[in-house]
Amino acid sequence: MQIEIINTGTELLLGRTLNTHHQWLALQLGDLGLRIQRQTSISDTASEIISAVSESLGRADLVITTGGLGPTSDDNTRSALAELLGLRLVQDSAVMDRINGFFALRNKSVPPHASIQAMVPEGGTVIPNDHGTAPGLAIEVPAGKFRLTRSHLVMLPGPPRELRPMFINQFMPWLRSQFLELPKLDVRTLRTTGLGESWVEETIAPQLSGLVTEGLEIGYCAKIGEVEIRLAMVGERGAEIAGQAEKIVRRLLKNHIFGSHTDTLERAVVELLKSRNKTLAVAESCTGGFLGHRLTNVPGASQVFMNGYLTYSNGAKERDLGVPSKILEEHGAVSEATARAMAEGCRDISKVDYSLSVTGIAGPTGGTDQKPVGTVFIGLAGPDGCVVEKNFNPYDRETFKFVTSQQALNLLRKTLLEVRMISG
Amino acid sequence: MQIEIINTGTELLLGRTLNTHHQWLALQLGDLGLRIQRQTSISDTASEIISAVSESLGRADLVITTGGLGPTSDDNTRSALAELLGLRLVQDSAVMDRINGFFALRNKSVPPHASIQAMVPEGGTVIPNDHGTAPGLAIEVPAGKFRLTRSHLVMLPGPPRELRPMFINQFMPWLRSQFLELPKLDVRTLRTTGLGESWVEETIAPQLSGLVTEGLEIGYCAKIGEVEIRLAMVGERGAEIAGQAEKIVRRLLKNHIFGSHTDTLERAVVELLKSRNKTLAVAESCTGGFLGHRLTNVPGASQVFMNGYLTYSNGAKERDLGVPSKILEEHGAVSEATARAMAEGCRDISKVDYSLSVTGIAGPTGGTDQKPVGTVFIGLAGPDGCVVEKNFNPYDRETFKFVTSQQALNLLRKTLLEVRMISG
Repeated sequence: MQIEIINTGTELLLGRTLNTHHQWLALQLGDLGLRIQRQTSISDTASEIISAVSESLGRADLVITTGGLGPTSDDNTRSALAELLGLRLVQDSAVMDRINGFFALRNKSVPPHASIQAMVPEGGTVIPNDHGTAPGLAIEVPAGKFRLTRSHLVMLPGPPRELRPMFINQFMPWLRSQFLELPKLDVRTLRTTGLGESWVEETIAPQLSGLVTEGLEIGYCAKIGEVEIRLAMVGERGAEIAGQAEKIVRRLLKNHIFGSHTDTLERAVVELLKSRNKTLAVAESCTGGFLGHRLTNVPGASQVFMNGYLTYSNGAKERDLGVPSKILEEHGAVSEATARAMAEGCRDISKVDYSLSVTGIAGPTGGTDQKPVGTVFIGLAGPDGCVVEKNFNPYDRETFKFVTSQQALNLLRKTLLEVRMISG
Repeated sequence: MQIEIINTGTELLLGRTLNTHHQWLALQLGDLGLRIQRQTSISDTASEIISAVSESLGRADLVITTGGLGPTSDDNTRSALAELLGLRLVQDSAVMDRINGFFALRNKSVPPHASIQAMVPEGGTVIPNDHGTAPGLAIEVPAGKFRLTRSHLVMLPGPPRELRPMFINQFMPWLRSQFLELPKLDVRTLRTTGLGESWVEETIAPQLSGLVTEGLEIGYCAKIGEVEIRLAMVGERGAEIAGQAEKIVRRLLKNHIFGSHTDTLERAVVELLKSRNKTLAVAESCTGGFLGHRLTNVPGASQVFMNGYLTYSNGAKERDLGVPSKILEEHGAVSEATARAMAEGCRDISKVDYSLSVTGIAGPTGGTDQKPVGTVFIGLAGPDGCVVEKNFNPYDRETFKFVTSQQALNLLRKTLLEVRMISG
C-alpha cells in the first residue's frame, strides 16, 4: 500500500516550525506495518496544495494532508482540494452544532469565519475533532481520475494536540475498516556501539544474503559512536525471516549490540546496574557533566547513580578526588595515571561499586604534539580493580563529548556483562 | 529563485530519525533572503531518488539533496543522480587523498568501499567535507534537459555535523558566486529568555507597526524557555529599517535579551564571567550534570568554570556539599533551605566567586501534593549572599532539565549584569 504525506504550512518552509508530524505519523503507521513512500512540505497556497496533492494522488493509495483546515485566511486545504476533485462544499449540520457547542462551552460567541470549518466536500466523511473546531475529512477518489485505481484522500488538522488524538482514536479505526488486508511487516532494530558502519555491513551482509533473496531488507543508520541495523520483512513469513536475520546478526556482533528499537546506551547501563544491584559514581573532566546528564535522563536512575564530580580544574581533581599533585605534575591532567587516580578516588569517596572517570582534550585548543585535541583517557574502577582506556576522538566539542561518553558507558556495560557471566 | 530540498533516507520515512535538515536549511537560506518552495522526503532507493529529483529539476532553479553519499550499499544518491543526468563517475584524486588522510590520521586502514566517496560525476564540482569522508557535489544541469532554463543540483551529506559546516563554509560562498543577484536582506535575530511568546509579541509589535508598513518582517520562534525574535528587511533600506527595529526591541526588552544570531545563554554567561574575571562552580541534583554540560560546551569555559558536584543522593549532598542532615530531614531534599545550603556549601568548598545549585523533581515519579513533579529550587551564592528562586516546570524529563538550566543560567546572568552596573 502506497502512502504519501503532504504537510502544508508556510511556517514549515520558512523553518519557523520543525516538522514533527512526519515522524509521528511514520511511527504510528509503522506500527500498523505501513510505510510512507514520500513526504512533502509545501506552503499553504491553494495552487501549491492542488499541484502537490494531484501528483501524490497519481501515485499513492492513501494521501494524508496535514494543516490548513482552520478558519483563517491562510487555511486553504479544504477549498483547494474540493476544487481539485470537483466537489461542492456543503455545510454539515452536525459539525456546525459541534462548533457552536465548542464556543458555548467556553462562554464565547462563535467567530464570524468559524462556520467555514463545517463545510464538507460532497460525499466526504467527517472525522470528528475532540480537541478543536476543525474536523478531519476523508474522501474516496474514484478510479480513473488520477490513476487507474481508486485512492483515498484524508485531511487532518495542523495542531499536534488535535491531530494526534484524532489519528489514534478516529483515523486508525477508519483505516482498518477501509483496508482490511493491511500487510504484515516484521521489523527488528538492533543498536550497536564501538563499531564502524562499513565494518558492520561487511561483517553481517554476506551472512544475510540468502535471506535478502527471500525479501529481507537491511538498513544501516550510522552516527558517530553508534550504528543501528534494521531488519525488515513484509508478508506472511515476516516474523520467521526477520527472526532468523536477527539471530544471525546477534551471533556475529555479540555484545557490541546494546539494545533494540529505541533503547539508549545509558538506559542499557542503568538497567544492567539495577539488575546486578550495583551503584555508580562519575568523575568527569572534559565531558563536563554530559556523562551524568545522560545517565540521569533515564527515569529511575537515582536507584543506581549516586553522585558525580565535575573536576574541570586541576585543583578540584586534587581536592575532590584526592588525585596526588605529583601525578598531575609528572603525567599531566590528561594521562592514564590521572584517569586511574580519578576513578579510584571517586570510587573510594563515593562508596559505590563502580566509578567512571574521563579526562581529555575536547579542543578546539589545548592540544600538543604528544597529546593532540581529541586525546582522552577513560577509567573504570570496580571491585576487581581499575582499567584505563585511551582513545582518540578528534571531533568538534559536542561530538567529542558524545563519543567519549559512549565509550565510557560501553566500557562499564561490557564489564557488567562479564559480571553476570562469572556469577551466572 | 525557486529552491527545492529533497531529504533522502529510509530512516526518515520510517520515523526513526526526525528531519532537522529541512528546518535548518530553511533558516540558513532565509538569512540570505531565499525561501524553499518545496521539501520532499524519500527513501534511499535509486528509483525514488531519480523520480523525485527529476520532478524537482522540472520546477526549481536549485535542487538540494541531503544524504546517501556515504560508502554503504544504501548510499545511492551519487550514482542514481549521475545516471539521471547521464554523467560518468570519475575518481577525483584530491578527494581520494583526503579520504586516505582521514583514515591515516586515525591510524585506521581505508575500508574497501570508502573509495566510492571519491567518485565525482563528470563536470561536477567537489564541495570539500572538513568533518567526514564524503564530499558534497554541485552539478549544473543544462537548459532543455528538465525545463527550458538551466538549474543547479547540489548533493550534501546526511550527517548534520558534516552538512552544517559544509553548508556555511563551502556552500554559501558557492551560492553567492553562482547567483550574483541574490536580494539584499538584512536580518537581526534577538534571543530572549524568561518571557512568553504572546507577551513578547504584545510588547514589541505595536511599537514596530510603522516599520512594518515600510516592509519590515517580524518573526517569532518560541520554544519552552526561549523566544527568538527575527527582524528582516529586504532591499536597499534593509540595514536602516532593521537597525531601527532592533533598537526599539532592545529598548523594550532590555536585558531579557541575552544575545543575537546563534548566541547561546551558556555562552553569554561564560563571556560575562570572563569579562568580570569571576569563577563559577555548580551543585546539581535534578539536572544531573546538564548545567555543567552546557557551560563546558563553550570553548574556553575552563577559564571560569572550576568544578561541579552532581549530588544526586542525599548522602552526597551531606558529604560533598556539607548540607546539614537536619535540613534534609526537616525540609526535604527539594526545598529552599536545601538549595541554599547546596549553593553556599559549593561556593565555600570550591573557593569560587559564584555557585549555582539546583534541586527539584524531574519526574515522571517522585511528586507529592505539596511538591508536584516539576517543582524546582535554584540557588545562587555569591559575594553579596545567597538567593533562591522557586520555579514550577511541569514538563517531560529532558525539557525539565533544559528549562531549569535556562533559569539557573539566567539568574546568574542577571546578577552579573548588575555587578557591572554597580562597578561601572
